[in-house]
Amino acid sequence: MKTLTKTMKAMIIKDFGDTNVFAESETLKPEPRSKEILIKVHATSANPVDCKIRKGMFGSVFKLPTILGFDVSGTIEAIGEKVTDFKVGDEVYYMPRINGAPGAYAEYHIVEESIVSKKPRHISHEEAASFPLACGTAWDALIDRANIKIGETVLIHAGAGGVGAYAIQLAKLCGAYIYTTCSSKNHDLVKKLGADKVIDYKKEDFVEEIMKDTNNKGVDVIFDTVGGEVLTKSIEVSKPFGRISSIVRVNANLEQAYLKNISLHFVFVQSNRKKLDIMANLIERGQLKPVIDSVLPLSQVIDAHKKLEAGGVRGKIVLRITS
Amino acid sequence: MKTLTKTMKAMIIKDFGDTNVFAESETLKPEPRSKEILIKVHATSANPVDCKIRKGMFGSVFKLPTILGFDVSGTIEAIGEKVTDFKVGDEVYYMPRINGAPGAYAEYHIVEESIVSKKPRHISHEEAASFPLACGTAWDALIDRANIKIGETVLIHAGAGGVGAYAIQLAKLCGAYIYTTCSSKNHDLVKKLGADKVIDYKKEDFVEEIMKDTNNKGVDVIFDTVGGEVLTKSIEVSKPFGRISSIVRVNANLEQAYLKNISLHFVFVQSNRKKLDIMANLIERGQLKPVIDSVLPLSQVIDAHKKLEAGGVRGKIVLRITS
Repeated sequence: MKTLTKTMKAMIIKDFGDTNVFAESETLKPEPRSKEILIKVHATSANPVDCKIRKGMFGSVFKLPTILGFDVSGTIEAIGEKVTDFKVGDEVYYMPRINGAPGAYAEYHIVEESIVSKKPRHISHEEAASFPLACGTAWDALIDRANIKIGETVLIHAGAGGVGAYAIQLAKLCGAYIYTTCSSKNHDLVKKLGADKVIDYKKEDFVEEIMKDTNNKGVDVIFDTVGGEVLTKSIEVSKPFGRISSIVRVNANLEQAYLKNISLHFVFVQSNRKKLDIMANLIERGQLKPVIDSVLPLSQVIDAHKKLEAGGVRGKIVLRITS
Repeated sequence: MKTLTKTMKAMIIKDFGDTNVFAESETLKPEPRSKEILIKVHATSANPVDCKIRKGMFGSVFKLPTILGFDVSGTIEAIGEKVTDFKVGDEVYYMPRINGAPGAYAEYHIVEESIVSKKPRHISHEEAASFPLACGTAWDALIDRANIKIGETVLIHAGAGGVGAYAIQLAKLCGAYIYTTCSSKNHDLVKKLGADKVIDYKKEDFVEEIMKDTNNKGVDVIFDTVGGEVLTKSIEVSKPFGRISSIVRVNANLEQAYLKNISLHFVFVQSNRKKLDIMANLIERGQLKPVIDSVLPLSQVIDAHKKLEAGGVRGKIVLRITS
């Protein structure tokens, strides 16, 4: 077994707060035990959940100091003595559990092998790191929970966003007809990803547009990535017995959901190897494509968070780890 | 074809409001057309939805004057020319659609044959009329929507109520382990119906009791017949990925539902023959038993509504139609 260096660089937060809480620090390099794997992280990404944790919204789960970052694409550097599915040198991708353990804004990351999957071949680590959390969220919301089926109609809110851009592709692969909202500058992008009907939420009322287009029938499935008023209004465009998956804390008026027999699935993305395995197959076959807004070095994580919080991101913001 | 009398007695409401809006009146006796059936109603029942409609809460659906009553057990008096599944003299039971058409607080009722089922044999019309809406609601909530499975744990709120008493029996038949809340005077009743663990909601905190009993794991399925604070607290006793079916308009705090990946099914009962057919089989085999608080003549409908609104009813309030 080769000697491990004892420290690593990581982007640590010591306080909850604004983007200025990040500090690039030297910290103890972890060692894998039992079924754990030590990964040399090549790329991670910035997700809205990072901003929420940074602000202290998950204060009961994450204790300070901590490391954010819930996407990984990297190479296995060392394995615990009970690891059976991987070997040193394997290239892998995964979503670290959001359970209070350190994330991957760091040179190295420790993970249990059960949630790790082989990185899709023929794409870069930057591209691979754009999938696990965002595409995994869309997967949980549309496939596992809403159980979207061929021929159904789906409304995907914010289709040009990190999660939305993968949701459109997954819904298309499932044989659905896709309505999506985005600003007009992203019209071409979402069309290319597979959206059938694009609604400019800044200029058009999505309820009016969809009811007109569906002869007042509404849609089968709604993927809410926005919450509040958008969720309240989404109930109006749901068919009776429609399914709504929401990935945001609810602060909506659900009065009308009752007469319509709506099922509302609250979705908080789960780490799961099987899902990543299938996604890797789709990626390798060219059926699922990375959608990347920008790639920044980890040292520019503050810019990444500012950009995310400003809104209007086109796909994912990837963070490159350079040693 | 025998000559039909042209009028019938019915309990009509001409205004929305308190229980004093009922007036026993002579009204036109309807005639069945096409696939419709004319039923001589022997028994109907009082359901919470009657009180809501009476108060005007469904004012956009029900226009005045109207007739309430969404359970029927009776005998076919006449059939439309396209009716194929029934003949005059058949004894049937069903739930009239809650769509603005007249209900069954009347001597006769018109219904489309597609939602009618043969009345279970060996039980009275009073007993049969206690099932369609209440047991149908429990069916939709637990079987169709929450998809309850053998070995799962279920919390049924208000297990001694009209819907709750049938929900316990259905959950038991599905092989679930049942927690229920009721007042201590109904403890024996819900135990007899199949409840495994009874919580007196007046003296005990159901969250505390269930978390203690499940080693802090919580339950798989929750049937909420109460709403508000009860639904908010129910989220605390749900397992991750738990399913909650609610039959009341939501006015709850759903913040915690998101991190737990809860599915919330809003349930508004549907008229459906297939469900009634299966229920009739269960009733005839003695696996599903009527739970009746009281049988009143239709002339005492005011007392029935007052009793329902006062709460604490044990099972169903049936209304007998006497000509």
